[in-house]
Amino acid sequence: MRYFLEIAYDGTRFHGWQLQPNALSVQEVLDDCLSKILRQPITSTGSGRTDTGVHASQQFVHFDVAQELDTEEMVYRFNRLLPADIVARNLYLVADDAHARFDAFARTYHYHVTLARDPFKRYYATYLPRSVDVARMNEAAAVLLRYKDFTTFSKVKGDTKHYNCDMYEAVWQQEGTELVFTIRANRFLRGMVRLVVGTLLDVGRGKITVAGFEQIIASQDRSKSSGAAPSEGLYLARVEYPEHIFKTSPITN
Amino acid sequence: MRYFLEIAYDGTRFHGWQLQPNALSVQEVLDDCLSKILRQPITSTGSGRTDTGVHASQQFVHFDVAQELDTEEMVYRFNRLLPADIVARNLYLVADDAHARFDAFARTYHYHVTLARDPFKRYYATYLPRSVDVARMNEAAAVLLRYKDFTTFSKVKGDTKHYNCDMYEAVWQQEGTELVFTIRANRFLRGMVRLVVGTLLDVGRGKITVAGFEQIIASQDRSKSSGAAPSEGLYLARVEYPEHIFKTSPITN
Repeated sequence: MRYFLEIAYDGTRFHGWQLQPNALSVQEVLDDCLSKILRQPITSTGSGRTDTGVHASQQFVHFDVAQELDTEEMVYRFNRLLPADIVARNLYLVADDAHARFDAFARTYHYHVTLARDPFKRYYATYLPRSVDVARMNEAAAVLLRYKDFTTFSKVKGDTKHYNCDMYEAVWQQEGTELVFTIRANRFLRGMVRLVVGTLLDVGRGKITVAGFEQIIASQDRSKSSGAAPSEGLYLARVEYPEHIFKTSPITN
Repeated sequence: MRYFLEIAYDGTRFHGWQLQPNALSVQEVLDDCLSKILRQPITSTGSGRTDTGVHASQQFVHFDVAQELDTEEMVYRFNRLLPADIVARNLYLVADDAHARFDAFARTYHYHVTLARDPFKRYYATYLPRSVDVARMNEAAAVLLRYKDFTTFSKVKGDTKHYNCDMYEAVWQQEGTELVFTIRANRFLRGMVRLVVGTLLDVGRGKITVAGFEQIIASQDRSKSSGAAPSEGLYLARVEYPEHIFKTSPITN
């Protein structure tokens, strides 16, 4: 039987989502926990990777298990064993061929910036010592919605076959000294959100005009992008699936 | 010349405010920084202590220095040298006899509780796996305002001469799955807020009635208090001084 597990994690002490030798990953800790509780070797498949220091306020994984599970009891037991920086939120029985990565039709990331030094946010938001022009950053962000090819904001030639993304939303919101960027698309390229944010922040600082930002996207040239914004501000915030793959309802907790 | 420095700190990795051998304190790190920047040995005096793991969203210290300081430049330079979990917010020239501890006429603490497991709050709020009766906790908190002797909620016979506090405010507020307790008084006894919170949470759990809570206060018997609530939820949030001791205005940043 296949299950979707919804989790959240603080990425600070992990070398990203993906299992790897000689470095602690979220996946390694999660799979160890699932394997112990379910008394069989479990290898989970995530909706996508997050890099070192990047957080997830919502992430989904799928895994297969021989027996049917009591979803509420399992979430309780997972949380008893998981370290406090990984939290299990929900468990769903899903269709046998449901896939955490391939069935996700949209992903949303948040990027948090703080304009005031805050000792409590040092791992959770990026501090900007100087103010930025948020209205200008939003003009530039709106340009993203008119493009499909985001080669400019891809890190390296990876395993992707193409650089097209359907961009649904890209907007900055300010509340007091906190800025939050929300970006939603069907898919994202490796390192893309941090490169987009880094370049938008240069628009906000007046280093790049809105027209210049559009030229940078249109160039499809990686060297034109600004440097990646730091990892601590980035959160995978939402992963969306078609309703029909879920066979059980969310537990209430 | 005497200065008041306003700071905030994340208490997670510190063994409290107070300087001590063989353990890292906020005061040690702060005094080292002040001494380096001001090129003279500085020993600061805090408005009060915080215990291991307790935070301060506002704390004041005073220190003496031979020369007059450019307050804005100094705050900038302190923050360049301080670790990211201690932040300098403001610096004020004050009256020569102003005292960070003795001149404070009120202190406010916040205690944060989360009713949902949250990987981002594990050092910043106390997680309660079960719901509590907030209305009942507020009935009991209101009782605090009718008493002056808080022997019940004092940790040990320490250096205090009496156990009287003028209690100005004690209230729980709920927003979603987050509860925040605000308590304001002229002074607090050692360990007092965590003992009050621990006992109020037992009221919220139905283990103690409101009448029982009042009897516990009136008993002036330490053994009647519930255990102290964990340190990670506690914040020194505000320290209030008479206006007249300040000789300079806050810097804007």
